[in-house]
Amino acid sequence: MKLYNYFRSSTSFRVRIALAFKGLRYEYVPVHLRKSEQRAAPYLARNPEGLVPLLELDDGHALTQSVAIMEYLDETYPQPALLPADALGRARVRALAQIIACEIHPLDNLRVLRYLVHTLNVSEDQKMAWYRHWVRAGLEAYERHLAEQPAKFSHGDAPTIADCCLVPQVFNAQRFDCDMTGLDRVMRVFDACMELKPFQDAQPSACPDAE
Amino acid sequence: MKLYNYFRSSTSFRVRIALAFKGLRYEYVPVHLRKSEQRAAPYLARNPEGLVPLLELDDGHALTQSVAIMEYLDETYPQPALLPADALGRARVRALAQIIACEIHPLDNLRVLRYLVHTLNVSEDQKMAWYRHWVRAGLEAYERHLAEQPAKFSHGDAPTIADCCLVPQVFNAQRFDCDMTGLDRVMRVFDACMELKPFQDAQPSACPDAE
Repeated sequence: MKLYNYFRSSTSFRVRIALAFKGLRYEYVPVHLRKSEQRAAPYLARNPEGLVPLLELDDGHALTQSVAIMEYLDETYPQPALLPADALGRARVRALAQIIACEIHPLDNLRVLRYLVHTLNVSEDQKMAWYRHWVRAGLEAYERHLAEQPAKFSHGDAPTIADCCLVPQVFNAQRFDCDMTGLDRVMRVFDACMELKPFQDAQPSACPDAE
Repeated sequence: MKLYNYFRSSTSFRVRIALAFKGLRYEYVPVHLRKSEQRAAPYLARNPEGLVPLLELDDGHALTQSVAIMEYLDETYPQPALLPADALGRARVRALAQIIACEIHPLDNLRVLRYLVHTLNVSEDQKMAWYRHWVRAGLEAYERHLAEQPAKFSHGDAPTIADCCLVPQVFNAQRFDCDMTGLDRVMRVFDACMELKPFQDAQPSACPDAE
């Protein structure tokens, strides 16, 4: 397998965690987002979305969208599992993952921040306030879910795709100096994840294209 | 089951389609988004995210996030299926669904448009340009995926959760006068879906709280 990705992309980071958690080997193919390599013809021919990550399987099939890739990996390499065994548990884990994947990250990714600055001419302060606003709104909702059903990880005693989404988001939040006050459960789950080798091995600073 | 939702919410619309497609009966509980009922205490007690839709099961369990709810319905009521039988097909369908759920809708929902207007003071024209920009970017990517593997629906000869996401997004795009030029495959799939009763029955104008 080949993973087309970027060290700082949080959606790439999700998939790297899932691959490491499953013990799967892959070739790391860097796609430099700040140089817009994801919008250049060679990459667009592989992924018509012009986004990372892309997982290319050994038979040539290409998978896009990080959550769909993680679901595929969990179906194809079931152990260790990244989803609970019960339907209600899976629904909760998927909902937590979607809080990150649908309520926070889409608003704070690079192309959106660029649009704010270059097309809407917002100031640097306004951009950062936007970024932090959506991080807080999403993580506060996540925190309330954790309070309803406290556990070592986002759901139960083992990591799930929810944690694969949460950890990269917390990395980004810290990088952009977001206020984490009151997000104690989120941070305890984050710390529990970061004690595990798959999360350590997948982090941006461990990537070959890290700057 | 009770579905807490709003006629014009496209994430609610997704779940209504899935419920209708499965032939499941449910109580329709309107939550008026423009009156901010989703942020009021009674609703927040049910859903700490303060978002619609919420599906309350007969045993009292509450499910949030539309894609997670559709996955749950497909696992719990497998026929007719909303996901393909093969892992690669499921990966493709989930990726298509995520193009809508992660790349378009989060940027164009009500609370984000409100932030643009009330906090960033963007003009009405700028707001509409923003809206249309993300619709076009996402649907163009969707169109390219459809071109790679043409079929009657988004994937194959039967509707999937990808169609449950696509149709509400096209409704919104049309409502906001988005340019649909060149999105011929998207529109053919949309038309094929709208010939089916579950899609018709779930549409905003068919809802009890329609205005």
